[in-house]
Amino acid sequence: MPQYSSRHLEYAIRTIGQLPGIGRKSALRIALFLLKNKSTLLPELIEGLDGIRLNIQNCKACHNLSDTDLCSICNDRSRQKNIICVVESERDVIAIEDTGQYHGLYHVLGGIISPIDGVGPKDLHIESLVERIGQQNISELIKAISPTIEGETTIFYLTKLLKDHQVKISIIARGVAFGGELEYADGVTLGRSIVARTNIELTESA
Amino acid sequence: MPQYSSRHLEYAIRTIGQLPGIGRKSALRIALFLLKNKSTLLPELIEGLDGIRLNIQNCKACHNLSDTDLCSICNDRSRQKNIICVVESERDVIAIEDTGQYHGLYHVLGGIISPIDGVGPKDLHIESLVERIGQQNISELIKAISPTIEGETTIFYLTKLLKDHQVKISIIARGVAFGGELEYADGVTLGRSIVARTNIELTESA
Repeated sequence: MPQYSSRHLEYAIRTIGQLPGIGRKSALRIALFLLKNKSTLLPELIEGLDGIRLNIQNCKACHNLSDTDLCSICNDRSRQKNIICVVESERDVIAIEDTGQYHGLYHVLGGIISPIDGVGPKDLHIESLVERIGQQNISELIKAISPTIEGETTIFYLTKLLKDHQVKISIIARGVAFGGELEYADGVTLGRSIVARTNIELTESA
Repeated sequence: MPQYSSRHLEYAIRTIGQLPGIGRKSALRIALFLLKNKSTLLPELIEGLDGIRLNIQNCKACHNLSDTDLCSICNDRSRQKNIICVVESERDVIAIEDTGQYHGLYHVLGGIISPIDGVGPKDLHIESLVERIGQQNISELIKAISPTIEGETTIFYLTKLLKDHQVKISIIARGVAFGGELEYADGVTLGRSIVARTNIELTESA
């Protein structure tokens, strides 16, 4: 770490450099950029960060990020209230919302079962999911959880736990990614995509 | 721009996304990372940014970044006080300090002469440079200014302005960069590096 002529600059660069994907050179560039824009962008950025620090909470129902007790998705009257999509994190909600293909509710587990990291079912928002299914009129539960070993464990656990509930359980389709080339797909994915093949019906636009 | 379930998150992502080199995906990643570390890194980052906003000023003598009236370089007794290195910006000071090869003082112009951008000599810290040369016992002025058209204009202007002063004027060496391949060097650089060739003396370690 070189010596800067300002300790405040040095401190700022050190903290900026701890952000993901930002190295020392980028941190310096950002710090000098903010110094140049210290009456415009900098106060806005500080306000934005204060907003994260003070005002973002988790939705009481689905544990998604929210500014209020219930998040804007749970509060949205136009959404289907009988479908819940179970995801690992708030980031997954954003990714699925980005697709524009889903119009139901969510449930954020806050992690996945991972014995190696010491994360068990009790550490996740599983109890509140079971409560929601019991109390609300939920007809389908979609599990949108990454197809990793931990993800599969979590899916298996949830499926067993909910087997006595009157709710249809589905998982998102796994297979070869659109735009991907078959020869570069990994063997497990390709193998399972053959096993889980779907029929093309001529009446559908295939 | 997708809809996020939190307006505070949305605002933070928008401001973070205005930083140089950070796109929308990175901004989201950074915002969620900060949310996860909101009691550790986030307050430190806000403190660092407040430091930039409130505490960094320009050195009264050399216009470099400083926490006090005189910067730590001007205040450093171990530095050579009779050499001034003239640079365009504070960033150049950091780059030169990084090399560890220079032990004199600096003078930050705050820009270069660029008629097309409406920047003339009066917009730069040139008057204070002339004053420093007049008042202090400066024996050498090194111009470490980028070899662009605007840079050359600035160098020419300063050289003319200071021609009656008893000060040796030099510019940093230009030529083929170390580690660069001759065949990829641009023609102007290569041509000038031949004209400005230096003798290798056998007593030197070449």
